[in-house]
Amino acid sequence: MEQLFVIKIGGNVIDDEKNLSSFLNDFAAVKSPKILVHGGGKIATKIGDTLGIESKYVNGRRITDAATIDLVTMVYGGLVNKKMVALLQGKGCNAIGLTGADANIMPAKKRPVKEVDYGFVGDIDPLQLRVDNIQLLLKGGLTLVMAPLTHDGGGQMLNTNADTIASTLAVGLSKLYDVRLIYCFEKKGVLENVEDEHSVIPLITKDIYAQLLAGKKLFDGILPKIDNAFAAIGNGVKEVLIGDARDLPRNTTPDTIGTLIK
Amino acid sequence: MEQLFVIKIGGNVIDDEKNLSSFLNDFAAVKSPKILVHGGGKIATKIGDTLGIESKYVNGRRITDAATIDLVTMVYGGLVNKKMVALLQGKGCNAIGLTGADANIMPAKKRPVKEVDYGFVGDIDPLQLRVDNIQLLLKGGLTLVMAPLTHDGGGQMLNTNADTIASTLAVGLSKLYDVRLIYCFEKKGVLENVEDEHSVIPLITKDIYAQLLAGKKLFDGILPKIDNAFAAIGNGVKEVLIGDARDLPRNTTPDTIGTLIK
Repeated sequence: MEQLFVIKIGGNVIDDEKNLSSFLNDFAAVKSPKILVHGGGKIATKIGDTLGIESKYVNGRRITDAATIDLVTMVYGGLVNKKMVALLQGKGCNAIGLTGADANIMPAKKRPVKEVDYGFVGDIDPLQLRVDNIQLLLKGGLTLVMAPLTHDGGGQMLNTNADTIASTLAVGLSKLYDVRLIYCFEKKGVLENVEDEHSVIPLITKDIYAQLLAGKKLFDGILPKIDNAFAAIGNGVKEVLIGDARDLPRNTTPDTIGTLIK
Repeated sequence: MEQLFVIKIGGNVIDDEKNLSSFLNDFAAVKSPKILVHGGGKIATKIGDTLGIESKYVNGRRITDAATIDLVTMVYGGLVNKKMVALLQGKGCNAIGLTGADANIMPAKKRPVKEVDYGFVGDIDPLQLRVDNIQLLLKGGLTLVMAPLTHDGGGQMLNTNADTIASTLAVGLSKLYDVRLIYCFEKKGVLENVEDEHSVIPLITKDIYAQLLAGKKLFDGILPKIDNAFAAIGNGVKEVLIGDARDLPRNTTPDTIGTLIK
């Protein structure tokens, strides 16, 4: 099968113009079919503050009320997404910016209200992806740039976590491609010693993970990321890489420099 | 050749939730391949005012400075475009929301500074359209929803008049489709007597236009619209229709109710 990269970047790349431009150069140079998933960065909060839209959080998770879904649709789906598309076009990469509503790529279900009403938040399922429409675009030589937005199929946009969008795309496309899912974050990879940037663990398999857990060597905050990575692999994704956005050129080759999970 | 509709709506449809919903019902029901081009409506000015971005005009034309191009990218390319896409998806129409930067559909040239510096405004040329990418989407059963935005191919988004986007698309696609370009506006069609809504002229050909001009019957404000329509026809578009958004069902049949120009 052909290789496909699903690459997720977060605010630390998006918020800094120089970092972003350098990352997009590297991304544009990746030759295989590829999908970029971006988060929002700080700009939505900044614009929201100016517009008098309050950011509300419960247990560290943002509540998406009616004003907030309009805000993120505008900022993530418009400003951030289209800026990135225009920059990629300028670098010779034929990018197309999309939300999950476009071509119905990613239908979602509004999260049911239990203890917390998260508002206009969408939960997604790899089996619901319109893989046919994604294929149409990829086969046409286009590079998808996905904003962290979905829709309920009934006319309502929904806010969806970018990490989840990336892993759902990776799983949903794993029957058609050898997918490497790359999470770019602020460190070089998973560190054996969180104080030491040079202690990147190059490879984590299930066996190695069990040993690391037994030795209590890993930083607690990284465990959910690794668990999610193994969940993606259990559902067909060939490999997951956690690394620094600046290391993308190496991390899209067999000779990776971040943490490869497989 | 297969029929294609390129349909442009303006603020009078977009700004009113009920008008918009009713229009989108009618639009979704059109069976031929179709492209919707939307303007911005009043919401960009409203959000811009709240954000402290001043609307500047010279000779009635908006100046697009750096803050304004971000504003319109956000509001037209994000909020208005994605809301419309989600609503169309809810009505069973497989819509995909795009700017001219997406899939490089519509590369533009930043307008040269002469007496007036219009700022980040893009001029477009039907010969520059990436017809291959538009075809890919239309053949895939997708309905394009175009925001009034283009890009310079070098990383910069540009603001472009929605009427011009619609006519450029119509001309650029006229070699592949029998194109009917429909401009929805606030009247039923071109009126013989501007005071009388029932005086719609059903058909204007070059001969009829010459007679109407000789008789000085037409309202001056409509002349540029008719001239533009004949320019589109001179460049391959099969017919242009000027009419009311509420009459779309009739105006997408041979039995039109607005003013057909051919």
